[in-house]
Amino acid sequence: MRVGEIGEFGLINILGKMVADSNVSLKSGSDLILGIGDDAAVVNVEYNSQLITTDTLVENIHFVHSYTPWRDLGWKSMVVNLSDIAAMGGKPTSAVVTLGLHPETSVENVEELYKGILSASSDYDCVIIGGDIVKSPVTFITIAMTGSLKNETMTMQRNNAKPGDLVGITGSLGCSAAGLQILRSKQDICNIPNWDHFFRAHLNPLPRLDAVDHLIGLGINTAMDISDGLVDDLSKLCKASQVGAIINRLDIPIDKFLTSTFDAEECFEFALNGGEDYELIFTGSSVQVLNVVKLLGDSAAVIGQIVEDSPGNISVVDGTGTKSGYVSRKGWDHFS
Amino acid sequence: MRVGEIGEFGLINILGKMVADSNVSLKSGSDLILGIGDDAAVVNVEYNSQLITTDTLVENIHFVHSYTPWRDLGWKSMVVNLSDIAAMGGKPTSAVVTLGLHPETSVENVEELYKGILSASSDYDCVIIGGDIVKSPVTFITIAMTGSLKNETMTMQRNNAKPGDLVGITGSLGCSAAGLQILRSKQDICNIPNWDHFFRAHLNPLPRLDAVDHLIGLGINTAMDISDGLVDDLSKLCKASQVGAIINRLDIPIDKFLTSTFDAEECFEFALNGGEDYELIFTGSSVQVLNVVKLLGDSAAVIGQIVEDSPGNISVVDGTGTKSGYVSRKGWDHFS
Repeated sequence: MRVGEIGEFGLINILGKMVADSNVSLKSGSDLILGIGDDAAVVNVEYNSQLITTDTLVENIHFVHSYTPWRDLGWKSMVVNLSDIAAMGGKPTSAVVTLGLHPETSVENVEELYKGILSASSDYDCVIIGGDIVKSPVTFITIAMTGSLKNETMTMQRNNAKPGDLVGITGSLGCSAAGLQILRSKQDICNIPNWDHFFRAHLNPLPRLDAVDHLIGLGINTAMDISDGLVDDLSKLCKASQVGAIINRLDIPIDKFLTSTFDAEECFEFALNGGEDYELIFTGSSVQVLNVVKLLGDSAAVIGQIVEDSPGNISVVDGTGTKSGYVSRKGWDHFS
Repeated sequence: MRVGEIGEFGLINILGKMVADSNVSLKSGSDLILGIGDDAAVVNVEYNSQLITTDTLVENIHFVHSYTPWRDLGWKSMVVNLSDIAAMGGKPTSAVVTLGLHPETSVENVEELYKGILSASSDYDCVIIGGDIVKSPVTFITIAMTGSLKNETMTMQRNNAKPGDLVGITGSLGCSAAGLQILRSKQDICNIPNWDHFFRAHLNPLPRLDAVDHLIGLGINTAMDISDGLVDDLSKLCKASQVGAIINRLDIPIDKFLTSTFDAEECFEFALNGGEDYELIFTGSSVQVLNVVKLLGDSAAVIGQIVEDSPGNISVVDGTGTKSGYVSRKGWDHFS
């Protein structure tokens, strides 16, 4: 069955029922008063400090259907937004989902997409409360998400980094980019060790909402998520804070599956400029950052320091401490 | 200059500055803590009852560039959402704007689009607090908007209509559809009286936020906005309330410019099935609805009554009270 056969309202009925059956409820004392089906949804929020973010995935720009299963696409469309809420130090509350679909799209594929969306909705306590479905020559998914902060002083913005602060990151980097390279190359996976690990890293990234309480609890007030790549995103954070940063190349945590599959240079390239790992960069005083690393254990590391420099300049130093030169922005620009 | 030359970040800089200069502030005691530029925006809301809605305009589906000036497109992309907030009985608070743009789009056109967005933002006290810009083969604008309700019991939903209630509408209907017909036909406008009135009705509709306090104040708790057409939208309201409705054909307010330009049958077709007028349908007890009409004067009218019938069935009766038969759904389905 194609979307064009069942029609907009037939599709809304199916997806509305899937959402109702998913039975995810609002947390943190917030109540869903009115969900899908009216002119707008109504939510009673517990905290007055509300976060709002939006992110879009467009076919052939952010994903290619031939190597992106629909369920994974739904999952990822939620994660890119959940990760933004995590990077601000909040908890997700609700989301509205806009689907742009070609009439030839199969209804089963849209159901798969929604299974992915609802799986993330359930895992991260974020209720789907409305949306829109429109005809489009390419598939796109735009999600706008709200989150809550206990109060507006407990938030992690990009513009608080100061010279002398340490730079920490959660998790390890590079596996998502490795996964994308393998998916794109259409190589036989039987020749690639750990291919499934890399595919999952690219198709099913996890937002680091689990780290939020620890970061906020230890007084971290500067963070962002890594979507475009470590160097690119740290550069944006530094630009917002009017500082530079030095990264110690050998301190960047690289997944052991990566080092056992690719050579050292490839691993560094994936980790420095790959993107889409959705780990968090954070900065703070040495005490704060070292306490986070102690608390999170293997799941966080110190990778460098904030310095006075041209805003946004990132230097990478090698094992001996010798500067290997400025790394220019190589991140993603939609129109460049 | 093309969007592809200036790049995503160049464009964000220009639009971010336009938003900052527009200097619209949050009303109702809500504060904007953090706007464009971080992972998410932060708003401190005064009321705990929050409305959330989203609506999208896609090129060649909802609009055609050749007869839709970019500034009007920006205005309308806001109005379709503002109208949803009005239909729930709320006040708009903030919006995030996602633009899908072809790299060949001129930067000047995107600036014009934003002038339209910011003009509506300013006129209706709705702050632009973030968004996303993505490359797309067709232009699309998705806006997600939040609004506030004094409390969740003072809202206008679709499912409260009861047999015996009167059906009222604000304003008059049909001019937007007439405008679209003229724009599409590419007729010489010198042959069409009042063409500018119809063009404005189609390109610059007004959300009826001005009527909200009166409706809520008089106890109206059932409403929706007319985007797809009177019969189609009233049918949706009736379906949600499990009732039917009878409309008195001669009571439908039709703009005097319309009746002086088109014949009676065309006028009724525009008014019944045209859509995009963004007036409000509301229902309530006779006392309530008649009080609204008294208060709003020429700007509202009683057009019929809610009846027990198959849910969603709308009958139109002529001047003598004779049923002219059921009117089936003729509204807009994206995929039909």
